[in-house]
Amino acid sequence: MAPHILLHELGVSFQTVIASTSDGGTLSEEFTRLNPKQRVPVLALDDEVITELPAICTAISSLAPDRHLMGATPLETVRVYEWMNWLSGTLHGQGFGGLWRPHRFSDDPDAFESIITKARITIEECYGMIEGKLGGPYAAGLAFTAVDPFLLVFYRWGNRIGVAMKDRYPSYSAFAENLMQRPSVAAAFAAEKIYIDR
Amino acid sequence: MAPHILLHELGVSFQTVIASTSDGGTLSEEFTRLNPKQRVPVLALDDEVITELPAICTAISSLAPDRHLMGATPLETVRVYEWMNWLSGTLHGQGFGGLWRPHRFSDDPDAFESIITKARITIEECYGMIEGKLGGPYAAGLAFTAVDPFLLVFYRWGNRIGVAMKDRYPSYSAFAENLMQRPSVAAAFAAEKIYIDR
Repeated sequence: MAPHILLHELGVSFQTVIASTSDGGTLSEEFTRLNPKQRVPVLALDDEVITELPAICTAISSLAPDRHLMGATPLETVRVYEWMNWLSGTLHGQGFGGLWRPHRFSDDPDAFESIITKARITIEECYGMIEGKLGGPYAAGLAFTAVDPFLLVFYRWGNRIGVAMKDRYPSYSAFAENLMQRPSVAAAFAAEKIYIDR
Repeated sequence: MAPHILLHELGVSFQTVIASTSDGGTLSEEFTRLNPKQRVPVLALDDEVITELPAICTAISSLAPDRHLMGATPLETVRVYEWMNWLSGTLHGQGFGGLWRPHRFSDDPDAFESIITKARITIEECYGMIEGKLGGPYAAGLAFTAVDPFLLVFYRWGNRIGVAMKDRYPSYSAFAENLMQRPSVAAAFAAEKIYIDR
């Protein structure tokens, strides 16, 4: 979703290919050849195959450097990568990874329940930190950056797992509400057949 | 270690402060005020406090842009961030996090053994991928980048946890051996009182 929004933001030409394991299945052999790490998303750009969200966003940003999707100043760029590494490693990898894919952390199904419980604690701790850090419409500086749609993904996931996002995190909610006004977000939501629940 | 090597690489003036939990203790309240996420390393630069390894390396790199520590071309920069996010999130966070800090993933001590076992499998899978990706003295392009000292850290950690790095990963070993010839690495090792075991 986040790179998809960035592609719409730049108005470049691209093709999306759905690769889902949400039905409990595994990714195809064809996909595994593309990314042996078996993670989405993957960006194919010219002859290059690019993995890992911050790298994919960096590559998309390089298509229109004047849009400064990775920050407009050296310090903003530092903040963009700081947000992204934490969101990717702690909130996504440790939090949602543990919640939705406990088998990444243990081969013993008896351990899954406690891993899932702990992951939910990690996720809510991260949401608390995000709430404290957000103080306006943009996370990493004075304008829209790649961090913003990444934060929107986790806001939606919070609602999906039953966290009362709107009640508990007013700054994060205002941030998400504002972001959903962007045409790029509407376009990506429509393409992924996501209906905004008001 | 990795940012420490980069600082020596640039020859800039800096001060190191040790913050260790390796004795089983927790980080101090003073440190927690600095980084509520309670993770090392942290870089204080002018009035800014910067966390998350790729962001810290980005900030150090910005002190000497002509050294291209985050890559010399847009594609090299993409590869630098791709390596760093994977090393940070999967090898460090999921692998060594699970091995050394299983309590991050479960509050049930009965689950720790299976988490530690799985973490070791993850670590060795990552080492196998690193071995397959390294084909010369530099990981992300034609010259030294911030990825290289980060990879050196995990090479040393492999030896520390009893993986026969030299026997099992010849390309990774040649890469590490070559890197240890750099004066910046020798200087950081000496400052951290690390004695190279040949």
